[in-house]
Amino acid sequence: MDIRLIKGPSAGTLEIVENRSRLSFKNKRPGALGLVQGKVVEMLCAADIAEKASGVEVGDVRGSCPQNLIILAIVGEMSDVSEALRQIQAGMDEMKNI
Amino acid sequence: MDIRLIKGPSAGTLEIVENRSRLSFKNKRPGALGLVQGKVVEMLCAADIAEKASGVEVGDVRGSCPQNLIILAIVGEMSDVSEALRQIQAGMDEMKNI
Amino acid sequence: MDIRLIKGPSAGTLEIVENRSRLSFKNKRPGALGLVQGKVVEMLCAADIAEKASGVEVGDVRGSCPQNLIILAIVGEMSDVSEALRQIQAGMDEMKNI
Amino acid sequence: MDIRLIKGPSAGTLEIVENRSRLSFKNKRPGALGLVQGKVVEMLCAADIAEKASGVEVGDVRGSCPQNLIILAIVGEMSDVSEALRQIQAGMDEMKNI
Amino acid sequence: MDIRLIKGPSAGTLEIVENRSRLSFKNKRPGALGLVQGKVVEMLCAADIAEKASGVEVGDVRGSCPQNLIILAIVGEMSDVSEALRQIQAGMDEMKNI
Amino acid sequence: MDIRLIKGPSAGTLEIVENRSRLSFKNKRPGALGLVQGKVVEMLCAADIAEKASGVEVGDVRGSCPQNLIILAIVGEMSDVSEALRQIQAGMDEMKNI
Repeated sequence: MDIRLIKGPSAGTLEIVENRSRLSFKNKRPGALGLVQGKVVEMLCAADIAEKASGVEVGDVRGSCPQNLIILAIVGEMSDVSEALRQIQAGMDEMKNI
Repeated sequence: MDIRLIKGPSAGTLEIVENRSRLSFKNKRPGALGLVQGKVVEMLCAADIAEKASGVEVGDVRGSCPQNLIILAIVGEMSDVSEALRQIQAGMDEMKNI
Repeated sequence: MDIRLIKGPSAGTLEIVENRSRLSFKNKRPGALGLVQGKVVEMLCAADIAEKASGVEVGDVRGSCPQNLIILAIVGEMSDVSEALRQIQAGMDEMKNI
Repeated sequence: MDIRLIKGPSAGTLEIVENRSRLSFKNKRPGALGLVQGKVVEMLCAADIAEKASGVEVGDVRGSCPQNLIILAIVGEMSDVSEALRQIQAGMDEMKNI
Repeated sequence: MDIRLIKGPSAGTLEIVENRSRLSFKNKRPGALGLVQGKVVEMLCAADIAEKASGVEVGDVRGSCPQNLIILAIVGEMSDVSEALRQIQAGMDEMKNI
Repeated sequence: MDIRLIKGPSAGTLEIVENRSRLSFKNKRPGALGLVQGKVVEMLCAADIAEKASGVEVGDVRGSCPQNLIILAIVGEMSDVSEALRQIQAGMDEMKNI
């Protein structure tokens, strides 16, 4: 699983994310953009963790087809996005316990 | 084969599964969401085991195309989903015996 | 090449196979379902062996596109399917002799 | 590169090849079916060698899309197909000399 | 991640990039063409770095589908493109810090 | 990166290349056909080198989709194609210098 954190994402980068997800940055430009890429089963787990985190908004960045989930984008203030990414990193292994 | 168990899945996570499978959570929000990802031949075996387990509902989460079977979603109460995932993990090797 | 044998396949598993192949289980529910997954060149060889075996019916389970050969499904009575899968496993290497 | 030789291919196997290539077996059932799978660049080299071989007919077996070249099918009498496959195996390395 | 720098790109090479991106070279032929290929999550990070660099223009070269981000093309004067590529190479690891 | 050189390509091989590229061999049958397969970023670099070489014509052989660049075909007289392929092989590493 690849996790990245972009501080103060550029307008062009946000435009790419906007064009491929349900996220919209028209009213407010986020302070940070977190990106998570991995197996689809991991993305579903990461989405669940991110949505339970506070202060961030979560969207999946689509690839070649609207139904295809490839990358998770997490936006919000720097500290909130950073915290959500840390929770994803920490919580992934726990979900292997069945 | 990747097996994951999400306890108390968030509304957004269930929405992703609903949009890509024949499962519906409108009437009842499941206590747990089990996910299984692997080769198509393994998914067919896992689906067979899960359908014979009790108390769970099984659906395949589609990828880029409706005919493409990628991930198996198993929903129900926590203990039932957990038990079904354990049966899948235990039963997969047995099906290699021809 | 992955070979699997499902004893007494569930109604839901047979439905997945029916929806993605030319096989039909409306009149008779098969005692066993054999699955073979591998390279396309191997699937063509496996199909040839299975069709020459007795007492089984062979169909290819399609993926995202009707022309796409992904998995071979072999149905029939338990002993016949088991025997066909053994013949596939045994006969694959012989076809490498040119 | 995977090379396979099917002796006396079954009617069902020939039907799969017919449905996915420009080859037709309506008038004459071939004694053997040679299959070659590999990188597209290798398939183009193999096609060139096979077409220069005598007594065989060559067709590409399409995958999910008509423009996509995946597998080469070589049909004819057993000895001719076998000889063409041997020429492909022997001639591939020579084409690396630039 | 693969990074390449083409000095004085030919008309045909620029035409390929023009046909698959939003970049246009009708008014001015760039002195250099930088190319970056990698995971989608890396391409988003690289795009962000390149857009913050000075003197270059950035476009994503699409693959088989307009929504599919495969390669990043960075054009401008030789020294500017070279500097942007060096910033991408240097800055990628930093974004792993969450 | 895979490089191949076909001496005196057969009519059938040229037809495959014609059907999948903008190259046409109706007026003149080339003495040799060079093929280059690799990462898209490498194909763009190879195309640039080949177009700057003398006496050859360059086309990209498309895969499943017209926008998808998979293989580079270089045609011309034997010595020219051979020289262009050698320049590609020699020049690829140089473009890694940023």
